[in-house]
Amino acid sequence: MRNIKLIMAYDGSSYHGFQVQRHGPTIQEVLERALRDLTGEKIRVTPAGRTDAGVHALGQVVNFRTGSSIPPDRFAPALNTYLPRDIVIKLSREVPEDFHARFDAIGKVYTYVVHQGPHQSPFLSHHAHFVQRPLDWDKIAEAAALLQGRHDFKSFQAAGSTVTNTVRTLSRVELARRGPFYLLTFVGDGFLYHQVRNMVGTLLEVGAGRLQPDDIMGILKAGRRECAGPTAPAAGLFLSRVLYP
Amino acid sequence: MRNIKLIMAYDGSSYHGFQVQRHGPTIQEVLERALRDLTGEKIRVTPAGRTDAGVHALGQVVNFRTGSSIPPDRFAPALNTYLPRDIVIKLSREVPEDFHARFDAIGKVYTYVVHQGPHQSPFLSHHAHFVQRPLDWDKIAEAAALLQGRHDFKSFQAAGSTVTNTVRTLSRVELARRGPFYLLTFVGDGFLYHQVRNMVGTLLEVGAGRLQPDDIMGILKAGRRECAGPTAPAAGLFLSRVLYP
Repeated sequence: MRNIKLIMAYDGSSYHGFQVQRHGPTIQEVLERALRDLTGEKIRVTPAGRTDAGVHALGQVVNFRTGSSIPPDRFAPALNTYLPRDIVIKLSREVPEDFHARFDAIGKVYTYVVHQGPHQSPFLSHHAHFVQRPLDWDKIAEAAALLQGRHDFKSFQAAGSTVTNTVRTLSRVELARRGPFYLLTFVGDGFLYHQVRNMVGTLLEVGAGRLQPDDIMGILKAGRRECAGPTAPAAGLFLSRVLYP
Repeated sequence: MRNIKLIMAYDGSSYHGFQVQRHGPTIQEVLERALRDLTGEKIRVTPAGRTDAGVHALGQVVNFRTGSSIPPDRFAPALNTYLPRDIVIKLSREVPEDFHARFDAIGKVYTYVVHQGPHQSPFLSHHAHFVQRPLDWDKIAEAAALLQGRHDFKSFQAAGSTVTNTVRTLSRVELARRGPFYLLTFVGDGFLYHQVRNMVGTLLEVGAGRLQPDDIMGILKAGRRECAGPTAPAAGLFLSRVLYP
């Protein structure tokens, strides 16, 4: 059995997240069906991370084992002919037998897209979070800098989450502007459930003047979800890259 | 009763077209529900044209009658608070009592978006028609010029359509390039069912070298659907504007 790694991009708009579940179509379900159609094998894929309903990926990584004789680099083009147009395999290659997309990942990069302008575009509703009111991006940058580093991010973990070790290293937060779009990029060794969306929701509160940049310190210290801002919508979130040694 | 005109944009990806029907949510259904929620009245809207499942609009026009005292220009912002984010009312105003969005229209402008490049983007799958193979756009322009004018467009009407007068004036076809996107814009006094998508499908055959520009004359003369090219997918089509005197 060979171990194959895929790098994939998908538009999460029409899916109930990555992981197979009861309520509707998921990326995993559609990918595993394409793998079965292609190889005739019943294949289970392991993703680097699950993405929630409506969350997108530019560089999700998965691995799976197969007895198929298809050359490793041909899985990408072959799978693309079986997949719907909103899921694209960008690369496929063979990896060592013990490679595990999730356990071997040493970090992830997420990008969150905020569209700020006078009018919402109906065509961006699934791919960006719209904000009409101008935001103070200098203050957001100030607050973002305070999030960087090794912290207990418990306040930014979804309420009800059962993970107990909530210390993570957020090595970088970058802000960039492209026309009416603001991109917030987060690089870290790991992220808690809803952590990026909760950090974005909190940073937008700072941008709107409802929180001050300095409040970030208190929010981190509090270790209570209700001290941070609201959860930003899924639509603006993209899993950009998974980092390996 | 006042007569109110709306100009609206929508992303048709999640809808089964404009007109109320049995199989799923439609733009009309969602708009009429928002109007009911806003005014308390049971309001029926009249569109300038129905758009098919997956077809988008930048400037669809509808009108409706209401006894509500809401100032005409306030309908747009008020409705937007009731509508989902993929439907946006751009403008609302009062029009003469006898204005009819469909019968008063003297023309329409449609734009079709083709994405040509080495890789399909999963994020464009609902908003552009992807073509991997480079196309001969000079030949497409040549063929498009031959479509212009007053012709019997029967060959470009969906098979099974019952419209018998199939003569229309296509006053202009424009081609424009924006990076990897090619925009085909059609201005005409009226369009038959699937006419734009069938013209695009035929022009793409010309661009791929399977038809010659001159073949357009023969296709127009034939008056038979099977002589023209395939129907281009709905995803690339946008109703850009409706023209009134």
